[in-house]
Amino acid sequence: MLNQISGGVCAAKGFRAAGVRCGVKSGMSLGDGNQPIVPSMKDYLSGKFDLAMILSDCECAAAAVYTMNRVKAAPLYVTMGNLEDGVCRGIVANSGNANACAPNGHENAERMCAAAAGATGLKPTDFVVASTGVIGQELNIAAIEKGMGPLVEQLSTDGSDAAANAVMTTDTKKKEIAVTLTIGGKTVTVGGIAKGSGMIHPNMGTMLCFITTDCAIAHDLLQDALHEIVPRTFNRVTVDGDTSTNDMCVVLANGMAGNPLIEWKDDGYTLFCQALYQVCEHLARSIAADGEGASRLITCTVRDARSEESAERLAKAVVGSSLVKAALYGADANWGRVICAMGYSKAPFRPEYVDISFASALGEIKVCEKGVGLPFDEDFAKRVLTQDAVTIDVSVHEGDESATCWGCDLTYDYVKINGDYRS
Amino acid sequence: MLNQISGGVCAAKGFRAAGVRCGVKSGMSLGDGNQPIVPSMKDYLSGKFDLAMILSDCECAAAAVYTMNRVKAAPLYVTMGNLEDGVCRGIVANSGNANACAPNGHENAERMCAAAAGATGLKPTDFVVASTGVIGQELNIAAIEKGMGPLVEQLSTDGSDAAANAVMTTDTKKKEIAVTLTIGGKTVTVGGIAKGSGMIHPNMGTMLCFITTDCAIAHDLLQDALHEIVPRTFNRVTVDGDTSTNDMCVVLANGMAGNPLIEWKDDGYTLFCQALYQVCEHLARSIAADGEGASRLITCTVRDARSEESAERLAKAVVGSSLVKAALYGADANWGRVICAMGYSKAPFRPEYVDISFASALGEIKVCEKGVGLPFDEDFAKRVLTQDAVTIDVSVHEGDESATCWGCDLTYDYVKINGDYRS
Repeated sequence: MLNQISGGVCAAKGFRAAGVRCGVKSGMSLGDGNQPIVPSMKDYLSGKFDLAMILSDCECAAAAVYTMNRVKAAPLYVTMGNLEDGVCRGIVANSGNANACAPNGHENAERMCAAAAGATGLKPTDFVVASTGVIGQELNIAAIEKGMGPLVEQLSTDGSDAAANAVMTTDTKKKEIAVTLTIGGKTVTVGGIAKGSGMIHPNMGTMLCFITTDCAIAHDLLQDALHEIVPRTFNRVTVDGDTSTNDMCVVLANGMAGNPLIEWKDDGYTLFCQALYQVCEHLARSIAADGEGASRLITCTVRDARSEESAERLAKAVVGSSLVKAALYGADANWGRVICAMGYSKAPFRPEYVDISFASALGEIKVCEKGVGLPFDEDFAKRVLTQDAVTIDVSVHEGDESATCWGCDLTYDYVKINGDYRS
Repeated sequence: MLNQISGGVCAAKGFRAAGVRCGVKSGMSLGDGNQPIVPSMKDYLSGKFDLAMILSDCECAAAAVYTMNRVKAAPLYVTMGNLEDGVCRGIVANSGNANACAPNGHENAERMCAAAAGATGLKPTDFVVASTGVIGQELNIAAIEKGMGPLVEQLSTDGSDAAANAVMTTDTKKKEIAVTLTIGGKTVTVGGIAKGSGMIHPNMGTMLCFITTDCAIAHDLLQDALHEIVPRTFNRVTVDGDTSTNDMCVVLANGMAGNPLIEWKDDGYTLFCQALYQVCEHLARSIAADGEGASRLITCTVRDARSEESAERLAKAVVGSSLVKAALYGADANWGRVICAMGYSKAPFRPEYVDISFASALGEIKVCEKGVGLPFDEDFAKRVLTQDAVTIDVSVHEGDESATCWGCDLTYDYVKINGDYRS
């Protein structure tokens, strides 16, 4: 039994978090330059946060997956190095600059870890480092170094919100969840935060997602669990088909729940995977729902497929189609675009077996049977599709496998947000 | 030497064309139903045309390529059957309904050929049949059958414009071209028309494209030429990443130029391929420039690649990226999205070797060298990118191969057009 609780990445025992504004984009406004003013904590806590930390009271087993984009941001390479031993203490992250294809990228990512180490008394390699924002501009590392002290000062068990806010860019909603479960008689908590709104088409890695747990679990099993679950959750989300250079999903497990260490794929592992799945699924859906400019969440489930892989490929093509996305913005039951997207997905299926329905909280409407259009009530369809969350249900009548993928509609606001993101 | 001339598909000797409005979408408004009125030719020539014919005075060698979408519209299957012998006399096509996943699709496509045959005194199998428009609704075959007589009556050597208009859907501009060349001392003409604006991401086949030539060329060489050229032209265009169910590109060669029959891959074949390439490239670029809602044409050339295939893959990812497209709508020199799209293209390259420039009629501006951002004049960049045609020039410094792909920007109007295309 999983219980959803509040607290995000600080819900699990022994984790603190914080977020501040250090001024990554423009630096802090601190006087006229001739007379540098030492900013007060109030300065660091006003405006849009851009620097986050999550810290465990003790060493954590750490697992991570990264973007499959051939262009990877510098912090990913630094994190890969720091996690080579499978353990770490915390995460430091900034928004406003991706530190990808940027001058002095590797050096600045290392300086960010060093600053975190300096402010906490830990080692630079104890940190996961992550960045998100504009590609190609040099990171304002001086601002980050200055802000690190105030950031560490703010660390608290109430800090999940602030950390989640600090990693947001074009996100409009915070993505946060925590669940508890019982393993070996002990209450174990798994919580996470994520950011992601545009450049969302994760491939093995994902947008920024930080998950903490007090579960005692061996590092290799933590990595196995993450590798099992990310492909079924984050990798089934698409906002715009653009796989980011900075995607990263990290889980830290500090063992403070006191459960017997999970060392085998036993019942405890299965339970932990269920909790991790719920956390990842929730955050993945939240990212799709908060896709740049999105007005509604689109869920596509393909059923009765010959394999889960082909069901996933079909569902992903549907939620990824610009034409399906634009049609759903207009609440238009244009199922022809659904079957067209399936057709170019490269997954095998027979068009003449396909049934398609649209559904939402208002009801379900079948629009295509055996590959041919059905007459349907356009007015009712319009009402069904005007809801915040719409499901496209497809059966291909070829087997027993299914998969669900998530996306969002394509709106004027997506174009607006991305027409001039840098300014 | 190729000369561009007017006349479109009627520029070559022995071809006539026509377009009329038969009322595929709503039927003709012909009285109250109790007293059917026989529509006049004026009725058939007013409003948006939706029925087109191209007819040769004598038998043509015919070559065609079709969409790779697993869901293919009925007219494609009927055309494949009719072209099995490699010859035909003409093309009949409608807009307003794709006849894909539609009730009685195959039967209606055959009735369309039969109606064309009835009105011309030819055989149903003498025709290529094509449809474009909404997927999943039954074709109004009665309207087409009624309109066939007036259509054939309108056939003339001035009819290319009318035919091009009749196959347009969301297109805002007619796509038409003709060129002449000399083969074996004879003037040979190659001309074509195309339609395509949305659901454009051709794969081996393409949107609707009809090309005529009076060149004498054997059927198998005509097919070879088309197979060589379509992948380098139409298949390098993307508007929205959605490969249509109805894509088709057909070339008819009636031999009336009187040149020695091209039976081998000799100089004549090479010359003919150059002309066919110019026609296809022009139409492909026109389709990209007239992409749904587009405000500018985007051309991406990737140079110095290790293979043409990888150059094409990289360029296609760039012009296909929603984020690149939205940035260019905003005239934002956001090259980070260019290298990001290259990164997820699955083509091999080293980010640290990449140079990127933006260019237009106003000049060129280098924004990235060896994978790292360069300082550049943002105001000048804005001016460069505000032109109608913008080029993204990428060098990957790994070899000698290159490829060019075409696309367009992503605008509010794309969303508007596709938010409610059916109504």
